[in-house]
Amino acid sequence: MKKISLLGATGSIGLQTIDIIAANQEAFQLVAFSSGRNIEKTREIILQLNPELVSVQEETDAYTLSKEFPHVQFTYGTKGLVEVATHPATTVLLNAVLGSVGLESTLAAIRMGKTIAIANKETLVTAGHLVMAEAKKYDAPVLPVDSEHSALYQSMHGENPKAIERLILTASGGSFRDRTRKELEGVTVKDALNHPNWSMGAKITIDSATMMNKGLEVIEAHVLFDMPYDRIDVLLHRESIIHSMVEYHDTSVMAQLGTPDMRVPIQYALTFPDRIPLVGGKRLNLAEIGKLHFQEVDFERFRALKLAYEAGRTGGTILTAMNAANEAAVALFLQEKITFLQIEECIERVMNTHENILLPDLETILHVDSETRKNVQNMVK
Amino acid sequence: MKKISLLGATGSIGLQTIDIIAANQEAFQLVAFSSGRNIEKTREIILQLNPELVSVQEETDAYTLSKEFPHVQFTYGTKGLVEVATHPATTVLLNAVLGSVGLESTLAAIRMGKTIAIANKETLVTAGHLVMAEAKKYDAPVLPVDSEHSALYQSMHGENPKAIERLILTASGGSFRDRTRKELEGVTVKDALNHPNWSMGAKITIDSATMMNKGLEVIEAHVLFDMPYDRIDVLLHRESIIHSMVEYHDTSVMAQLGTPDMRVPIQYALTFPDRIPLVGGKRLNLAEIGKLHFQEVDFERFRALKLAYEAGRTGGTILTAMNAANEAAVALFLQEKITFLQIEECIERVMNTHENILLPDLETILHVDSETRKNVQNMVK
Repeated sequence: MKKISLLGATGSIGLQTIDIIAANQEAFQLVAFSSGRNIEKTREIILQLNPELVSVQEETDAYTLSKEFPHVQFTYGTKGLVEVATHPATTVLLNAVLGSVGLESTLAAIRMGKTIAIANKETLVTAGHLVMAEAKKYDAPVLPVDSEHSALYQSMHGENPKAIERLILTASGGSFRDRTRKELEGVTVKDALNHPNWSMGAKITIDSATMMNKGLEVIEAHVLFDMPYDRIDVLLHRESIIHSMVEYHDTSVMAQLGTPDMRVPIQYALTFPDRIPLVGGKRLNLAEIGKLHFQEVDFERFRALKLAYEAGRTGGTILTAMNAANEAAVALFLQEKITFLQIEECIERVMNTHENILLPDLETILHVDSETRKNVQNMVK
Repeated sequence: MKKISLLGATGSIGLQTIDIIAANQEAFQLVAFSSGRNIEKTREIILQLNPELVSVQEETDAYTLSKEFPHVQFTYGTKGLVEVATHPATTVLLNAVLGSVGLESTLAAIRMGKTIAIANKETLVTAGHLVMAEAKKYDAPVLPVDSEHSALYQSMHGENPKAIERLILTASGGSFRDRTRKELEGVTVKDALNHPNWSMGAKITIDSATMMNKGLEVIEAHVLFDMPYDRIDVLLHRESIIHSMVEYHDTSVMAQLGTPDMRVPIQYALTFPDRIPLVGGKRLNLAEIGKLHFQEVDFERFRALKLAYEAGRTGGTILTAMNAANEAAVALFLQEKITFLQIEECIERVMNTHENILLPDLETILHVDSETRKNVQNMVK
């Protein structure tokens, strides 16, 4: 029985995690979770899985819920996230909150030696050096939840890390993969949200269209697997069937394949090193699919990916600046305040003027994060 | 330093094994080897790798060589194979002889607890129950050298065997994959030897064209991985880039990919569980390849594969009969005494009249083997 704390229970990954826990109650127990302002969903999860501790964003919501569920403990805000993450009964923390809000609570859980299943790219991108150093110090395993990193993790399980030649992250190319840069000029929010393979949240779907998502994944792979950037490749693979690959120095390439279903990597992170049947999972049928396509990435076409490699190779607060600029710019695009191509422009402007600090502490990271967001806001005023 | 005995050093797999040992003399030592009648090659290998013991087929050749190389010990015939396989200094036996001739010596090495790297399909097909029972009893690891089984082995390394849902063997379809049965009627030996992806010996290339090769591999997979036949699938994949796959009960599929190079699985069997760089190995470039194709197998088109599944499901001496009938029929085809489609007919006739004995001992297997070969010879008289 794995005892789980879940940060971000009402988001896309969070809800799929809830499904997995609900479908396998002999294997998992939800000890604690956090949610934001979706109180209706929070209620449903409490009724379904009977956790000991729940944290919401607002104090008033915590108060309301505590009247309804007197046997459950409620908390709220940033301190609430830390309480959920560090609940003494928990052995696995699944961090599925968006943005940098999950950083402090994740570090707190690491310091208690808990296993961290991390769906939150930003934590690793902006503060990867802090997270991994602490994880090493406190012997806390850090397991990826992203499908690509889970595929890499699965493809290197049982192998000697020294035998790894390179990591190959596959990329669908997102909703605009067949368009030229010229053809991206007039695209709408609705167009961008129409991802060909994966059903995900709005922010990540836009990141997928710009390929900043893949850029963040490259950085995440660098951090998680301690791999230099020139040994992390991105390969366009439109079907998203091969989720990623690891090449070894004997030229063998190990890969993890499957139908696009985020529940697979989520469940793997919870059951690792074992596997359990995926309830309602769809088996891969390659004969039915018929063909898998592969293509080199054009870094001029997908400029955000190029920027991410640059930021990664530089390291330091430029990673936070890049990530915050992207988050702010994507939000502006979703509000129809900037065009699709202006997302990349915002990021590039921020990176070009950024005064970089290497190996930043948490305070510096949070400061750069909030300053960058303000700067991007000011760009459209 | 792995100390190696090699049976069948001058065959296709044997020579590639010699290449690997020669290229990595800090990792491997060739303690002993056997060869057939190719004395020139035998001389070269002795000069190159300085083994302690060499076995050839004929006593006269052993005598001749012992005059030339007084510091090397020579032996010959079947007892020579056993001496090579059981050399006290050896830790890994690589069995790369063709046909059932390697069976006794492999069993002898297993009883000494040596690691067995097995490239000899017939040993596992005809006497799999004996080999695996002895391997279990004497705690001798049995590692596959076939590229497909090596891919399966790599795809299940570090995994819980109970989580395996099915094995998926990929098949190029051989030199005639795009022809109908009608179009197979007039094919020549030369046509059949023209395999699209792999450079292999003549017998295995014909087996690849009939897909009996894949049938033998299905049986081999059943024996090696203790997997029921209804959980072993064959998938047509013309590029031979995905060498095989393992599906798990969480719907994840692990696969091993690479350029077609038999040295990869040979070397993996010798270095397992580690890997070493493949000297002169060609890295996989999926973007260059562009597309991978997959297609269901038509069991009426590839009737030999259907026969192999039938023999496998039945078990017993019918496996030996099928294998011997195939070997004999392929030899007759290579001598242009029967047509390509008559290979399958021979096998089917033998199977239809075979009086099956379940769980046969070694003597019974060898008897059925020689009787079947005689019967097939008599068919063309």
